Amino acid sequence: MRRNLSVSNLSTAKTNPGNFFEDFRLGQEIRHATPRTVTTGDVAVYQGIFGPRFAVQSSDAFARKIGYAHAPLDDLLVFHVVFGKTVPDVSLNAVANLGYADCRFLKPVYPGATLNAVSEVIGLRENANRKTGIVYVRSRGFDETGDCVLDYVRWVMVRKRDENAPAPGEKVPELPKAVDPSQLGAACPKIDAAAYDTVLAGSPHRFGNYKAGEKIDHVDGITVEEAEHMIATRLYQNTARIHFNNFAESKGRFGKRLIYGGHAISLARALSFNGLGNAFHVAAINGGRHVAPLFAGLTVFAWSEVLAMAELPGRKDVGAVRLRTIATKDKPCADFPFKLALGPAEGGTRGTGDDYDPAVILDLDYWVLMPR
Amino acid sequence: MRRNLSVSNLSTAKTNPGNFFEDFRLGQEIRHATPRTVTTGDVAVYQGIFGPRFAVQSSDAFARKIGYAHAPLDDLLVFHVVFGKTVPDVSLNAVANLGYADCRFLKPVYPGATLNAVSEVIGLRENANRKTGIVYVRSRGFDETGDCVLDYVRWVMVRKRDENAPAPGEKVPELPKAVDPSQLGAACPKIDAAAYDTVLAGSPHRFGNYKAGEKIDHVDGITVEEAEHMIATRLYQNTARIHFNNFAESKGRFGKRLIYGGHAISLARALSFNGLGNAFHVAAINGGRHVAPLFAGLTVFAWSEVLAMAELPGRKDVGAVRLRTIATKDKPCADFPFKLALGPAEGGTRGTGDDYDPAVILDLDYWVLMPR
Amino acid sequence: MRRNLSVSNLSTAKTNPGNFFEDFRLGQEIRHATPRTVTTGDVAVYQGIFGPRFAVQSSDAFARKIGYAHAPLDDLLVFHVVFGKTVPDVSLNAVANLGYADCRFLKPVYPGATLNAVSEVIGLRENANRKTGIVYVRSRGFDETGDCVLDYVRWVMVRKRDENAPAPGEKVPELPKAVDPSQLGAACPKIDAAAYDTVLAGSPHRFGNYKAGEKIDHVDGITVEEAEHMIATRLYQNTARIHFNNFAESKGRFGKRLIYGGHAISLARALSFNGLGNAFHVAAINGGRHVAPLFAGLTVFAWSEVLAMAELPGRKDVGAVRLRTIATKDKPCADFPFKLALGPAEGGTRGTGDDYDPAVILDLDYWVLMPR
Repeated sequence: MRRNLSVSNLSTAKTNPGNFFEDFRLGQEIRHATPRTVTTGDVAVYQGIFGPRFAVQSSDAFARKIGYAHAPLDDLLVFHVVFGKTVPDVSLNAVANLGYADCRFLKPVYPGATLNAVSEVIGLRENANRKTGIVYVRSRGFDETGDCVLDYVRWVMVRKRDENAPAPGEKVPELPKAVDPSQLGAACPKIDAAAYDTVLAGSPHRFGNYKAGEKIDHVDGITVEEAEHMIATRLYQNTARIHFNNFAESKGRFGKRLIYGGHAISLARALSFNGLGNAFHVAAINGGRHVAPLFAGLTVFAWSEVLAMAELPGRKDVGAVRLRTIATKDKPCADFPFKLALGPAEGGTRGTGDDYDPAVILDLDYWVLMPR
Repeated sequence: MRRNLSVSNLSTAKTNPGNFFEDFRLGQEIRHATPRTVTTGDVAVYQGIFGPRFAVQSSDAFARKIGYAHAPLDDLLVFHVVFGKTVPDVSLNAVANLGYADCRFLKPVYPGATLNAVSEVIGLRENANRKTGIVYVRSRGFDETGDCVLDYVRWVMVRKRDENAPAPGEKVPELPKAVDPSQLGAACPKIDAAAYDTVLAGSPHRFGNYKAGEKIDHVDGITVEEAEHMIATRLYQNTARIHFNNFAESKGRFGKRLIYGGHAISLARALSFNGLGNAFHVAAINGGRHVAPLFAGLTVFAWSEVLAMAELPGRKDVGAVRLRTIATKDKPCADFPFKLALGPAEGGTRGTGDDYDPAVILDLDYWVLMPR
Repeated sequence: MRRNLSVSNLSTAKTNPGNFFEDFRLGQEIRHATPRTVTTGDVAVYQGIFGPRFAVQSSDAFARKIGYAHAPLDDLLVFHVVFGKTVPDVSLNAVANLGYADCRFLKPVYPGATLNAVSEVIGLRENANRKTGIVYVRSRGFDETGDCVLDYVRWVMVRKRDENAPAPGEKVPELPKAVDPSQLGAACPKIDAAAYDTVLAGSPHRFGNYKAGEKIDHVDGITVEEAEHMIATRLYQNTARIHFNNFAESKGRFGKRLIYGGHAISLARALSFNGLGNAFHVAAINGGRHVAPLFAGLTVFAWSEVLAMAELPGRKDVGAVRLRTIATKDKPCADFPFKLALGPAEGGTRGTGDDYDPAVILDLDYWVLMPR
């Protein structure tokens, strides 16, 4: 019947089908829904799911004493909320989240701030099979005053709606391998490092106690439950279907719900407190790779390697430590699992291959700040 | 021993046995425990459990821009908190929650408000078997200033303590099939519809873009976990035993915990964002039926039909859309599952029978407001 | 390689191995990490996990009306947050948490307070096997003004790192069997008992309605999920590994994660509302024993016995009720399960043996305050 058909067409138009590869354009700006006021309530839910113990985010009194207005939001909570907004427009039809780069935290964010997000398409490349393409977006999170609090690039492989559609553009952006130390620290007010109480903070080790090459096993493990990752991911208003719909996913690629990659990042960060207790601020993420999927019922462990130490221009209060943090599933990290060893016949030594240990789920390269 | 018996009697008297059918009286007023200050903490837990994305409730900045003081509480969170208070007095000995009617939201409720509830018994009817009776109550939620924020009728089938007790009354109240549009909107301040940013809100479709007869498949599905529904239901201080006690329920009617019916309502509302993104306020619930039970492990889907469109007297800022939202378990809603088809021999056409598709769990008839 | 070894040593030094028995000293003072601002967000998460209904903590309006500034934090939430801080220093290498004594709540704590904790070692006794020793600590929780809000003693059996290490001291402190009523009430402002609305509070029974010897079955049961106890325990920043790491615990003593003992205390307290609805404040814990472990999937029930009634010196507003609350797993408490009956041949009567009913998980002796 004509009327029913027209109704049906109407309805299709009202739900969000997400963008397919051919829908993107170089230079396109996408203002994302939904603005979100992040409160101490969100902080508490995040605390319950991940258990972070960094004193600056945990205590108003501690934060005030060193120079913050009061306890700021966990940097990763800010990241997840901003990231979540980009999902309906950028990655609803994504096959894979390929990478992050040039992620910088630019302003301390306090409970009560309202975050929104805007993305710009900075790169496009169709894959040879013409079924998918890679979309590069620079996403920015803003607070209610219009200040940019977070700026990062990610690239995802997105399906085409129509294989015969022409590629919408061809450009692979140049991205920095790492954020330059001169760009770090905008989200950290000048702190009074002498007032930073390392006993209260839970670790005696300041910036000067770490050095490049050092490896730290974070020892503890946390088992993930379905309820937990779904609660966290909904807290960020991240709508990626694969995390929530067991009816569909039980018949899908993995046979079960896939956990949001950012969940592993937050777990690894919380675990890293044991060994990096004064790494109170994530200043930048240089790059990250979700090496393998994580599912409920598995236990996450982590270890870190100090990749580099850097002073911040003009600042004597804090220093920057570049870390690689590796998270694993169901594998403790006392022997620092990373990449697979190659046999001598292959001319290899442990850790130089391209293939990761199958227990590795996350390889994250980022800068943290520590008091000096 | 005399002393032990007396002690035992004392103790029985101190726990709440709930009311049985013969304990109710027509016109009886019941002031319910427990007053509850609803905070941004509750908002965050609710957000984590259901993942709503309506911009007005999500963002202080968005809400302020259109005319709210700041982001109000989700209407359904208000409903659940008020409903929860009535449980120990009204439905602790209920066999079934039969229906809702004439539910109107009367004042915007903001975080920090303290809610309490009062019910009036407006109808009573003993069932023919004399083992149970139907109790109709009008329940009202009040804030700390004494203003009524919510007013609704529900009726439940309640067990008798003693089959031989006389029926406490006999009256079936007349209830409206639907709330009249002239009664809608008290909980929505006059908004600046031009300042309502549909891009930020996540949908371009305003009031004028919908029409009666339109059907919308909300596409997404959410799987429910035991921890989630119990956390939500405790958040509302709803004490109905069947939701929490697996030791008893594993031997009971369903062999497992039953999920609070309101959980399905909140899930359906959150899912409905995909297609109804600007339906920012639930103004009234005309009626609702929990068609079938919901259990943990199942995935909830939903679709909606526009039943009617209405202008609000004297208001040009918002319009009212009457919706039927159907929620299902483990069944996507692309073909709008509703009632069972009858064969041609039975003279039927699809959807005209009285029996629901066995996947349907909720049939909710309600009014939402949208910006014009 | 020298460099790698030195790096490895460094890293070992940076993670917290916890203290072993020989690391403690009599009189030693331990300032614990991590200070924690407890917010209405934490209140909401706690509400969702346990579902308490005591009106004073639930409602700002109710609390104000009787004399509080507004709704204080649940006493047990304060306890758990302070307790959690002591874990990394006191009980990371504990074999068993043996007992509590002399626990007094000293100041009302409101959302927004920042809590930190300090412990003093007040007793040490090596066990005969020389593999473990008992450590007695007095732990104090302070708010951001430096006021002590909580003071309690606990003792734990802690492993030695080295069996040959000499015992670090030998002293068993004298501890009161119960907190004296004269020490109760510091955390309860003088209340207006006439303004205390027992209908809103959910129970008509004031202090004068209870008497020693009375037993109350709290009737309801709550099944515990893995996600719930882990969320709660992380909320307190309690890092005891046995609660979180299923990979390790599946091969451990119980074959699964053990639930934090305090979880059973909070569940029992929430259940006790049904029968003790006006016991609005836990003033002191005289002693407590985690009789048997609790695991996810089990259902917790509880009953209480009034051990004593006490007036508070100089106070006519509230009275103190000393309770024994027993929590069980998968066993309703209509017959008050406690200790195993001994046969007549053993000269016993029910409840006088030393062995608990195997369903009992918690035996808690504490003082609550009720309005007079």
